[in-house]
Amino acid sequence: MKNIYILGAAGSIGLQSLEVLKENKGYYQLIGISLGSNEEINHRILKEIDVEIVCLRDDMFISDYQHAYPMIKFVSGDEGLIEIACYTKSGLFVNALSGSAGLRPTVAAIKHKKDIALANKETLVMAGDLIKNLIKEYGVKLYPIDSEHSALWQALKGEDIGDVSKIVITASGGSFRDLSRKDLKDVSVHQALKHPNWNMGAKITIDSATMMNKGLEVIEAHHLFDLSYDRIETILHDESIVHGLVYFNDGTIKASLSSSDMKIPIAYALFYPERRAYQQTLELLQLTFKPMDYERFPLLKLAYKIGRQGGILPTVMNAANEAAVRLFLDGQISFLDIELIIKQTVETFTQIEHPTLDEIIETDVFIQQQIRKTYGKR
Amino acid sequence: MKNIYILGAAGSIGLQSLEVLKENKGYYQLIGISLGSNEEINHRILKEIDVEIVCLRDDMFISDYQHAYPMIKFVSGDEGLIEIACYTKSGLFVNALSGSAGLRPTVAAIKHKKDIALANKETLVMAGDLIKNLIKEYGVKLYPIDSEHSALWQALKGEDIGDVSKIVITASGGSFRDLSRKDLKDVSVHQALKHPNWNMGAKITIDSATMMNKGLEVIEAHHLFDLSYDRIETILHDESIVHGLVYFNDGTIKASLSSSDMKIPIAYALFYPERRAYQQTLELLQLTFKPMDYERFPLLKLAYKIGRQGGILPTVMNAANEAAVRLFLDGQISFLDIELIIKQTVETFTQIEHPTLDEIIETDVFIQQQIRKTYGKR
Repeated sequence: MKNIYILGAAGSIGLQSLEVLKENKGYYQLIGISLGSNEEINHRILKEIDVEIVCLRDDMFISDYQHAYPMIKFVSGDEGLIEIACYTKSGLFVNALSGSAGLRPTVAAIKHKKDIALANKETLVMAGDLIKNLIKEYGVKLYPIDSEHSALWQALKGEDIGDVSKIVITASGGSFRDLSRKDLKDVSVHQALKHPNWNMGAKITIDSATMMNKGLEVIEAHHLFDLSYDRIETILHDESIVHGLVYFNDGTIKASLSSSDMKIPIAYALFYPERRAYQQTLELLQLTFKPMDYERFPLLKLAYKIGRQGGILPTVMNAANEAAVRLFLDGQISFLDIELIIKQTVETFTQIEHPTLDEIIETDVFIQQQIRKTYGKR
Repeated sequence: MKNIYILGAAGSIGLQSLEVLKENKGYYQLIGISLGSNEEINHRILKEIDVEIVCLRDDMFISDYQHAYPMIKFVSGDEGLIEIACYTKSGLFVNALSGSAGLRPTVAAIKHKKDIALANKETLVMAGDLIKNLIKEYGVKLYPIDSEHSALWQALKGEDIGDVSKIVITASGGSFRDLSRKDLKDVSVHQALKHPNWNMGAKITIDSATMMNKGLEVIEAHHLFDLSYDRIETILHDESIVHGLVYFNDGTIKASLSSSDMKIPIAYALFYPERRAYQQTLELLQLTFKPMDYERFPLLKLAYKIGRQGGILPTVMNAANEAAVRLFLDGQISFLDIELIIKQTVETFTQIEHPTLDEIIETDVFIQQQIRKTYGKR
């Protein structure tokens, strides 16, 4: 059996990863996980699994956990995540953390020769160039878990990237896709969290509504597939069945389709190159596509611009988004304030062309603090 | 440069193959072709190309051709096709003949160690098992040119056939797709030849309207991809943009798309594994799918049944279809007579489980003669 680690095990991707493992017993031995702040979910997970090391969100209840599960080593906080990433046993490191907190554990895991299954897109958005160099240096593998990137990865299987004229990432349009910009003025958090096709975590659901999620995915794809931004397009696709398309220079297009079930790309990354049987029926009826509307979704346009500029700016944009979405979810700013805050933040920040990992992490922390201080009401 | 042969060079696929070669100079040396009965097209082709051996439909004008093109060796008829297939120079043998006449040249070319690019689906429909054995025995390659099979071949690239739960071949529905069976009673040849999406030869355009073409493609796919018939499905797809879909057992579907331009699959077969640049724009807007209607298209249902029974029966069905379509195109029978003739013919023929090549060819000739005699008015 191979070893596996799951950071963010109590989140949407993490829980589904645990289900995939449960449905495919005997393949992986779970070594370490990190949990979240929902005690009920944490205990439900711990009662079901066999694991050596667990990272808690903070150290408040650590002795209670230690008492309840004496065979497990408990650690906590950001340092705990790093401890899991550096754990001596090799294996597959599933990073399903949400947000910029995912970067440092990815770096540490690579340096400890673990292969990476990446659901944390911030890792590549913030530090794509650094990560790619580390991947080469340490000779580890990097597999995407995002449904769009998994689709593109699969459509590219057996193909030569030199034959690709462009890749196209599909976008559902998110919870407000049927609203005009005028209608967005007074939308509520509750409305924003109702995604038409996917049941996901709060942060990514808001990112889908602002289309920032697609912007982060474009930057992620740029790094994953080594393609320039003018060869990465997005398209509106209501049904979320086609997740990615690869256009070849001979006129052929390959598309990768599946139902909106994250267990499919998760299993693909976990068992690659094997495909594990999974009962899924999908009746094809109608697939519709519309050109992306950059006026309606200005954050996507911004993400292309920032991606092209590179350097520290993707980190700045991502940090501003993360802090602003947090403020929106907390009811402290309006939906359209998210865009305003991100724009103002990236426009005023001085570029660093080749930031170090420390500069990236410090900038992320600095920007998020600054936004909370400037725009937060409490 | 590699050598190339094109049988059926004056037909739709043949002419487009010549265009592909013209657009990709320096890759192939044309060695031999066969022409058709349109003198104007024949001369237009011969004036443009450099070739060693040419097969004419019959020997009527052979001395005129020989006089006009003294550097070329002219042969004629079925024996001329075989002479080209047996020509000493190795190379790629494009079989773009229409109908059962394509079988013997394919066999001869394989035995003379030529790789096969196959647009003549009758070769596999009539003698799939024999052909596959010969391919193995002589160590040659077999590449499909049919758009659907090219799409499936491409979607399967880099994949393990053991992971495939099913393949799906799309069908436009042909020229009468919007008519009910009742409406088919009095349709004309002229109406039948108007395909909504593709500009093809007469025989295949009628086969599309009867859905027999899809039946032949199902049998062809069975042999090409070594899949049982219960893992080969068809689906109605108005736009003819998705040509084939591969369903994997993990819930992923890969689709291969392109505009309705046969030069794309032709070039893919000719230059495999290379993709040669070809300017093509295709805007995705709407793709619609409907379950196949076997009551509306009974010949497809019949083709599945006959394919499963195997032996000599696919040859019988194909011969009956070929003769009946010829009679329809000649205005001697009605559109719905095609179905009746095929059904009656296959129902009364005694099965031969493992026919020899000679038995297959004799049966084809016998059935076609019999149908012309029984149902032809002149």
